[in-house]
Amino acid sequence: MIRIELQVDLHYDIDANGADFVFNIHAAQTACQHVTAENLLLNQPIPTYLHTDAATGTRYLRLRALPGPLQLSYTATVDLHHHFAEPAHLPEVPVCQLPAEVIGYIYPSRYCQSDRLLRLAAHEFGALWQGHGRVQAIMDWVRSRVSFTSNVSNSTTSAVDTLIERVGVCRDFAHLMIALCRALNIPARFATGTDFGADPALGPPDFHAYVEVYLGNRWYIFDASGTAIPMAFVRFGTGRDAADVAFATIFGGVRSQAPRIVTRAIEDPAQGWLRPVRCREALSTDAGLPRTVA
Amino acid sequence: MIRIELQVDLHYDIDANGADFVFNIHAAQTACQHVTAENLLLNQPIPTYLHTDAATGTRYLRLRALPGPLQLSYTATVDLHHHFAEPAHLPEVPVCQLPAEVIGYIYPSRYCQSDRLLRLAAHEFGALWQGHGRVQAIMDWVRSRVSFTSNVSNSTTSAVDTLIERVGVCRDFAHLMIALCRALNIPARFATGTDFGADPALGPPDFHAYVEVYLGNRWYIFDASGTAIPMAFVRFGTGRDAADVAFATIFGGVRSQAPRIVTRAIEDPAQGWLRPVRCREALSTDAGLPRTVA
Amino acid sequence: MIRIELQVDLHYDIDANGADFVFNIHAAQTACQHVTAENLLLNQPIPTYLHTDAATGTRYLRLRALPGPLQLSYTATVDLHHHFAEPAHLPEVPVCQLPAEVIGYIYPSRYCQSDRLLRLAAHEFGALWQGHGRVQAIMDWVRSRVSFTSNVSNSTTSAVDTLIERVGVCRDFAHLMIALCRALNIPARFATGTDFGADPALGPPDFHAYVEVYLGNRWYIFDASGTAIPMAFVRFGTGRDAADVAFATIFGGVRSQAPRIVTRAIEDPAQGWLRPVRCREALSTDAGLPRTVA
Amino acid sequence: MIRIELQVDLHYDIDANGADFVFNIHAAQTACQHVTAENLLLNQPIPTYLHTDAATGTRYLRLRALPGPLQLSYTATVDLHHHFAEPAHLPEVPVCQLPAEVIGYIYPSRYCQSDRLLRLAAHEFGALWQGHGRVQAIMDWVRSRVSFTSNVSNSTTSAVDTLIERVGVCRDFAHLMIALCRALNIPARFATGTDFGADPALGPPDFHAYVEVYLGNRWYIFDASGTAIPMAFVRFGTGRDAADVAFATIFGGVRSQAPRIVTRAIEDPAQGWLRPVRCREALSTDAGLPRTVA
Repeated sequence: MIRIELQVDLHYDIDANGADFVFNIHAAQTACQHVTAENLLLNQPIPTYLHTDAATGTRYLRLRALPGPLQLSYTATVDLHHHFAEPAHLPEVPVCQLPAEVIGYIYPSRYCQSDRLLRLAAHEFGALWQGHGRVQAIMDWVRSRVSFTSNVSNSTTSAVDTLIERVGVCRDFAHLMIALCRALNIPARFATGTDFGADPALGPPDFHAYVEVYLGNRWYIFDASGTAIPMAFVRFGTGRDAADVAFATIFGGVRSQAPRIVTRAIEDPAQGWLRPVRCREALSTDAGLPRTVA
Repeated sequence: MIRIELQVDLHYDIDANGADFVFNIHAAQTACQHVTAENLLLNQPIPTYLHTDAATGTRYLRLRALPGPLQLSYTATVDLHHHFAEPAHLPEVPVCQLPAEVIGYIYPSRYCQSDRLLRLAAHEFGALWQGHGRVQAIMDWVRSRVSFTSNVSNSTTSAVDTLIERVGVCRDFAHLMIALCRALNIPARFATGTDFGADPALGPPDFHAYVEVYLGNRWYIFDASGTAIPMAFVRFGTGRDAADVAFATIFGGVRSQAPRIVTRAIEDPAQGWLRPVRCREALSTDAGLPRTVA
Repeated sequence: MIRIELQVDLHYDIDANGADFVFNIHAAQTACQHVTAENLLLNQPIPTYLHTDAATGTRYLRLRALPGPLQLSYTATVDLHHHFAEPAHLPEVPVCQLPAEVIGYIYPSRYCQSDRLLRLAAHEFGALWQGHGRVQAIMDWVRSRVSFTSNVSNSTTSAVDTLIERVGVCRDFAHLMIALCRALNIPARFATGTDFGADPALGPPDFHAYVEVYLGNRWYIFDASGTAIPMAFVRFGTGRDAADVAFATIFGGVRSQAPRIVTRAIEDPAQGWLRPVRCREALSTDAGLPRTVA
Repeated sequence: MIRIELQVDLHYDIDANGADFVFNIHAAQTACQHVTAENLLLNQPIPTYLHTDAATGTRYLRLRALPGPLQLSYTATVDLHHHFAEPAHLPEVPVCQLPAEVIGYIYPSRYCQSDRLLRLAAHEFGALWQGHGRVQAIMDWVRSRVSFTSNVSNSTTSAVDTLIERVGVCRDFAHLMIALCRALNIPARFATGTDFGADPALGPPDFHAYVEVYLGNRWYIFDASGTAIPMAFVRFGTGRDAADVAFATIFGGVRSQAPRIVTRAIEDPAQGWLRPVRCREALSTDAGLPRTVA
């Protein structure tokens, strides 16, 4: 088990008309991620509305902010229970056997236009042995071709842009890897949360985006940009791509400051709280699904 | 009430490796669309798997076809119970009051890149009175700018392409209208099914794509391309855009023939089965949702 | 006649491998733009090569910079002799009568994909009376739809991007206006130089980009972004779009500082040097061409 | 020397308004391509205007067609004098030494957006030894990744589309190869004409598009799609990309039939007329330019 304490501080200046927000900054409550304590502080005396997506545990916080400064401070203690698997034992699942709740993740989405990449993916990866190794090959392919650089891509940058321009941040790596997987009919989805252990040269701690791929009978984590330690990722959102799980979707005139994020792993072997490390096993925080027999 | 009898015939030639299919050719079972009888005939002795999406009633049929010809014939009798509303009474719903299950439909998707159209939509429609009339204005704007022409757009054509190139089929009209609505934070989604009453000059009866927009407390139908009589639309699928509800998603080497579709409205006032007509009221086949109070 | 004195200062830091540059910062020598004095100072003792494009008078300066700082300072005194025409008297020229050296400017180019805009341009402007008034209508259309905002567009932004996203700088306004003209078979090209009289709120004096359209028998100036006083524009380059006449094209590892540009109009009626003003006449600095009779 | 006899037959139906055409179907007159005889037949009694681009020898035929059928039949006898070079001896030319008339061919153009491919080209080809071998490697890369398939790409398809979708015809192969060369500062341009020796399985003889790359001191021919025998290519047009040298640019309402093209190599060793063959030497039909010393 891994125990993470995290704090997220957000600061906005709202113009005279007020503004609506949808935040996704709560740690998800899932079978393998337990939020043992959490607290949300708001500087404005406004009602908030918290909705949980039943399928993924993603929690969306909605509020209508008043003009002036808006500050949110979210703290949580989160316990992560990982499923470990031997990569060589993880097969891809034929389309006809994918669970119904999984099949939507082989379709294209806003930032992952897999429908345009069928030939490219077949050319590059079509001859590889199917399974975890092929997904690893896709991730390696993306990592070796895309440079991690801030402030070149933006919120409209999609997988095909990244494929052409070969530069981006964690979100862009994730979108490209997802699009390539889907082009091979491998279900892949977008996860967000906090990173851990990233090289400080890449900038201050930030929200992180990574990939989940469905292999065998559950979703496995792939850190497409390779910048952090997956074992310590706290999950906020799970969706098809960044359109589903932006940490903040803003409706109105707002100036934003950079978020401030602190995460800390609490090590205490006596309690069963281990140190997050990079590991060779495949890692999942998904409880798993029975396989469909079509 | 409207009673429709429909028949869909599909024909494929499967190559030597076989092929997987996901079909969306069953009439959806919803509160307002009752499938009173249906039958599916397949020429191959293969298992099929039918999954219903709980949120929308969309039914997905999966199968793995053997090499050689594959023929499907689906027939159904469907009763449509419409909700009629006075357009002038239908307001837009503020983001902070949208039901949780609706809010996802203001986000961009594969074919509806609303995130790129914020300024355009604000310029063209931002000053209009909010409500059904503004949505109608968006639809009129699209119709007056896009020419209905077959075989120019294709399966990768998206709303921004249609906005630039100004030509397409019902699917393209729908995608552009949806993208513009979402750019104004008006929830909009993509519906598919069979058309009715279309001008034969546009070609033989075909699958149809149209739009639903969330106003007041339910989803209302808008026939973006304006080619058919909405009151007789039988719904197959409901999704964010065509990526979700293709009538056939094919995995493998397959040659396709054009689908053959027949729809017939059964008129019998004694039974309460009326003739489908164009009407000035806003039309919905959605049972409605309670409004969120945020 | 208008007399302008200008100074352009550029500053780069060249990395250890050196770098090649192609500059277009010399005032063009044309029939209507006389460079009465000019001087170029370089801080590096390196050879330079100056090439003049015969068709447009555009001068390209090439050099290979050594590692370390590179500073250029260009000063010039330029006399502008304008041709004034009554807008109502300026016709469009039928394709079959366009001079051979002009016809290339109806074709699409990197940033002006007019081939994709044929239907849009026909819809918006096809019914207008042909001539200067239609070109003016195109410019007004662009100006009323695009917001002048710095740092949103970049060097890969093209006319279709601007048409979708509705935001940009002078270069983007120019590209969109050119693309729309060409989509109607009206020859249009891209001009660069220094602006004059711009609102200081838009930022410090900068390189400027504007449009020339071929009407009657010569090229007329249109300031697509409407930010400056055309009568005082000093021309540097003329090309199909920004790909042809970047003020600096850089090959190698270089950090750039913002250019520093000063322009001053020298008024002295005794010498015939007038004050640049906005005028209602159509303005040209082109000597004119005989019309082809095909 | 190679002697080619060719015939091009074009057939259009012009609607009631008439239509303007710019054709590029004359064999170019260059230092290495001699048109020893030619004839153009038109079925309409209309004036034509033939313009030759001085820099490339490209000939543009303009005419305004009357309503009804328009038929053109062009026949020519063309002698090709090739320059052969040892590939290993052909260097790339540093930017600072490129002749002024060549440097424009390192800039991006409508269908060759090299500005977006800088990182990709550097990653794939940046470490290769510079010279003919690197250009050959680019061509091989394109050929091994793109499938030759008709009727998938269209007239708006550009190099970035082909890079993503991996399918196209000779024009698309050429655009992608050109874009990749330019992204490495290697001048590359687009040539059109007639092919020879193509596999009949690819369809009837057609107009052909190929690539010229500037190496050493002249332009060398590369048949990007690899479908034909370069030694027998008759040149019609030379430009930045297909926007410059379409075989027919049409302004007006026109229905087109497929062109009919016949080419024949006249072999007669006594006259010095040899059989066109694939050869390992680098091939040029360019007279060569003195190298600039910057």
